[in-house]
Amino acid sequence: MKLSEITSPADIKNLSEEELETLAEEIREKIISTVAVNGGHLASNLGAVELTIALHRAFDCPKDKIVFDVGHQCYAHKLLTGRYEAFSTLRTMDGICGFPRRQESPYDSFDTGHASTAISAVLGIARARDIMGTHFKVAAVVGDGALTGGMCYEALNDAGSRGTPMLVILNDNGMSISRNVGAVSRQLTRLRISRGWIGTKKNVAEALKRIPVCGKPLFKSFERIKNSIRNVLIRDKFFTALGFQYFGPIDGHDIQGMEKVFCRLAEMERPVVVHIVTKKGQGFLQAEEKPEKYHGVAPFVLDNGKMRGETAPSLGKTAGEYLKELAGKDKRICAVTAAMTDSVGLGGFAAEYPNRLFDVGIAEEHAVTLAAGMAVSGLRPFAAIYETFMQRAYDQIAEDVCLQQLPVCLMMDRAGLGGEDGATHHGIIGVSMLRSIPNIAILAPCCEAEMRAMIDWALLRQGPVAIRYPRSAPEIPIGKDTRFKVGKWTVLRSGQGPILLASSSILAECLEAAELLAKMGIDAEVVNASSIRPLDEEYLKRANANQRMLITAEEHVLAGGFGSAVAEYCAREHLSAPKAMIGFKDAFVPHGSRKKLLQSRGMDAEGIAEQVRKAVKQ
Amino acid sequence: MKLSEITSPADIKNLSEEELETLAEEIREKIISTVAVNGGHLASNLGAVELTIALHRAFDCPKDKIVFDVGHQCYAHKLLTGRYEAFSTLRTMDGICGFPRRQESPYDSFDTGHASTAISAVLGIARARDIMGTHFKVAAVVGDGALTGGMCYEALNDAGSRGTPMLVILNDNGMSISRNVGAVSRQLTRLRISRGWIGTKKNVAEALKRIPVCGKPLFKSFERIKNSIRNVLIRDKFFTALGFQYFGPIDGHDIQGMEKVFCRLAEMERPVVVHIVTKKGQGFLQAEEKPEKYHGVAPFVLDNGKMRGETAPSLGKTAGEYLKELAGKDKRICAVTAAMTDSVGLGGFAAEYPNRLFDVGIAEEHAVTLAAGMAVSGLRPFAAIYETFMQRAYDQIAEDVCLQQLPVCLMMDRAGLGGEDGATHHGIIGVSMLRSIPNIAILAPCCEAEMRAMIDWALLRQGPVAIRYPRSAPEIPIGKDTRFKVGKWTVLRSGQGPILLASSSILAECLEAAELLAKMGIDAEVVNASSIRPLDEEYLKRANANQRMLITAEEHVLAGGFGSAVAEYCAREHLSAPKAMIGFKDAFVPHGSRKKLLQSRGMDAEGIAEQVRKAVKQ
Repeated sequence: MKLSEITSPADIKNLSEEELETLAEEIREKIISTVAVNGGHLASNLGAVELTIALHRAFDCPKDKIVFDVGHQCYAHKLLTGRYEAFSTLRTMDGICGFPRRQESPYDSFDTGHASTAISAVLGIARARDIMGTHFKVAAVVGDGALTGGMCYEALNDAGSRGTPMLVILNDNGMSISRNVGAVSRQLTRLRISRGWIGTKKNVAEALKRIPVCGKPLFKSFERIKNSIRNVLIRDKFFTALGFQYFGPIDGHDIQGMEKVFCRLAEMERPVVVHIVTKKGQGFLQAEEKPEKYHGVAPFVLDNGKMRGETAPSLGKTAGEYLKELAGKDKRICAVTAAMTDSVGLGGFAAEYPNRLFDVGIAEEHAVTLAAGMAVSGLRPFAAIYETFMQRAYDQIAEDVCLQQLPVCLMMDRAGLGGEDGATHHGIIGVSMLRSIPNIAILAPCCEAEMRAMIDWALLRQGPVAIRYPRSAPEIPIGKDTRFKVGKWTVLRSGQGPILLASSSILAECLEAAELLAKMGIDAEVVNASSIRPLDEEYLKRANANQRMLITAEEHVLAGGFGSAVAEYCAREHLSAPKAMIGFKDAFVPHGSRKKLLQSRGMDAEGIAEQVRKAVKQ
Repeated sequence: MKLSEITSPADIKNLSEEELETLAEEIREKIISTVAVNGGHLASNLGAVELTIALHRAFDCPKDKIVFDVGHQCYAHKLLTGRYEAFSTLRTMDGICGFPRRQESPYDSFDTGHASTAISAVLGIARARDIMGTHFKVAAVVGDGALTGGMCYEALNDAGSRGTPMLVILNDNGMSISRNVGAVSRQLTRLRISRGWIGTKKNVAEALKRIPVCGKPLFKSFERIKNSIRNVLIRDKFFTALGFQYFGPIDGHDIQGMEKVFCRLAEMERPVVVHIVTKKGQGFLQAEEKPEKYHGVAPFVLDNGKMRGETAPSLGKTAGEYLKELAGKDKRICAVTAAMTDSVGLGGFAAEYPNRLFDVGIAEEHAVTLAAGMAVSGLRPFAAIYETFMQRAYDQIAEDVCLQQLPVCLMMDRAGLGGEDGATHHGIIGVSMLRSIPNIAILAPCCEAEMRAMIDWALLRQGPVAIRYPRSAPEIPIGKDTRFKVGKWTVLRSGQGPILLASSSILAECLEAAELLAKMGIDAEVVNASSIRPLDEEYLKRANANQRMLITAEEHVLAGGFGSAVAEYCAREHLSAPKAMIGFKDAFVPHGSRKKLLQSRGMDAEGIAEQVRKAVKQ
């Protein structure tokens, strides 16, 4: 039976060992060829192919429930659950999502995208099952990287203390987004060498007896195995201390071995963790060798793995390089990040100042409070985290950073639409999030020069600053002498008609809209409102005095965002309110290319021009 | 030397054993007598008296740094660091704060109030110390309850993996706000019995030899001690697995024993955890017996411990009782809370439906995603958490609840000013926080009847709902036939003049303001805008058509709040903007009575009347 003929997991239940191997190969090929065209998460998905097959043979979905933590490993699951045909639309607008989505399929039990939530979600599902008196199996598939997030621990503790029957599958592939961090991961790393053993403690002991005696090389292996056992015991204690039964480690590329174990463990009347050892990138040489590079990838050339596509300057890299430069002169400068040193452009900083760069794992809450602690003692920490993940640290930003007026600079990378990654990865609520918190300045650069100027300013400020920026500089043609000043906006395009206030990425669309409007006889002014808090109050008052029409535009939700800030200010000062506010309405934005998403929401150049035209005509 | 003569920790360094005991007694008396008058955190502060004395003898503050997790145990610290005189102003406006505050004293190293942050903060301080090449000791004092928060684990993992020298003092008093939850706590409970032993493993073993042989009772003790040792070993493994060196358990009421240990351990060149066993409420019989009741207390009568003050109906209790009632008919109803079952009014529900009430410890993130998991499987979870602590779950509310449109009802207790508890405990950014997230309805009841009606509505909605409410019903004289309808506001006081739009607690001040305004000849209308999202758009349009002046009032920050929502809507629909928006400006609000805080910000009845009068005259 070919992969293309499989419509549900029932179809794989009777396949032979050989057929299963072929199936795994087909899945890998499909994943690689699709990601080569559409981009996506490669290494983690390749690593989980056998695990997924085994799980779907042991489980009876959709009655049984599987929750994939983060969802970086759900492609094989999608291919086995009736989405083979649709798979070519992966990550494209109106196509299937790169993450599990309940709306997409009854086989997707819970939407994920941010790390460390699966154990909590599965525990909730298991408790609902028990309260409702129904019966089905549940499993959370959790990568070892996700275990650096404290939420897992909260959930394990809760599950263990009540003994709720559930299965946690620890997919140990030795890395999260960048190299794994922390002591827990270090221990797992040692375990990794025992791949191939089906290891309940007893099994490991028995397996030991079967080792052939063959001289020196064995000695090393033996040492390793001893280490493994010792570590298994530690691990054992660790999970059992939390009330779980622990099994493992188990070879994560042995389908039938895993299937047997999953069948047995999912029936147990208590919480169980099973430790599966997989290889990230398995089956695609480039990804096996550099899984980090092939974690989340842009489209690439199949033959050599070379990435396609543009290489617009990365604002994160600009910031990282500038911080590295400044750090040479200012030893107060240090950096904190959460499992993404390279992605946020801090690779160079890390190489140069390894003792001043702290990658704390997928632990945004700790990252921000750690930075606060550094700041009270005189350092100038820059906490670089994707904006969508910074949401995790909302309370810490408020209570630990801003309440104390600490000079922590939040570097909120990937602000604006996350494009193909979809709803969980857009950074489009950050302004509202930060505006609710007193004391913190909110800035949004539109180019590399402005980014550097904002960092300079943040270093001078005796208080918190957030700099929000998209992945790539929108390459706004900003004059070299247009220097950033906090609370001051600059005119990028003069005009006598309506004034478009915007910042960062969407400025490009606004400038283009202004050209379209010019053809319609509307002479719009475009302003770089890169200082979101404080606003340029003087500019707003002057515009009002001159009876100019204001229109705000933002790649962000309207509720509580930049337009809202302008409307609030205008109401307070009895100025005319913005005539229109362009941004996302009260709804989540799905996946798709940024361009198409903006277009569909009337926020590309044409859409903005049209909204301005309407406002002018009213 | 009397407590009143102590101006800094240096003064206690040379006291004799006897003097130290007297000092501890004096501190306890001062704490009890002050809390009896001012209210405050009693049991946890009484438990940490000897620990604090020992720590200040071992440390040299303010050069050395102590961070108190949550801060529920900092009173003795405040009394020993030059704040004896000021202590009578505890928790009053412009007086000293009930939590550590850097602004208040150089001896307070880091502001706390929310749980589980101290290890992160101290790690940051320690790393700053090492980067700057300075030398001082650092300690985080963490209660065992706080260890149920995942952030601690993130920090322990980070500290252990880099081996940063720091001291974590685990103050094990066997409870957080309500009974302790989770497997970790269960283990600590077993350890508690070994109080009195200074127990590095070696010391425990030596101590064992000195146990007198005395028949049966010994046998039990012996069993217990064995259990303890076994658990020490587990504990040992647990912390050492994370890279810490573990010492303990140690008697938390033996000053000199602890002092010796603190001195030695704080000098170690690695991360160390020391396990101190204390008794919550120590020295005050009522608090020892019912530490939960004496955790955070209102003023009480010294002789018998009876609480003083009014007993306004608790909206949380109203909700809890109503949910209990409904749960009898609707088995989908369940409840989740985070270490505060009783405080949020769910005590009755817990007693009646112990299998449908989940107290997950101080783990708000997990609580919300757990509820989401329950909701996908058909339950109707109500997650009852103080609004200020719900901030911890911002990301989970967005990504796990709202993105999936799940019918989770967030019961956000203690919305509005937290009064004497201060900045970290006010619930005044919740509307902005929630408004940034699509899909979630935001409601704010002003009385018990409205609370019940909102719960009814939440049960019908196929999506997320947040109900925000203050501790006590403001007792608004609302007609019985004034039923809650979502998206509909009701007029509480008709008038021909300006319209005051407000909800929940501050409605009382608005109604009073209207009476004051009437005396000035201004006939204000007061509207119960209890449906914050959706707004009553029809009402706003009608008011605009009738050229009525709108003024919003909220016990909440202005940025992104209710007034902002109205201003946004008005701008979008080209209606006249609110003439004034009453709320907190861009600054944190400190501690003090709600009444005085409102007064100082021009938001009591007089202040509101004055702001309305000004708006009318303009």
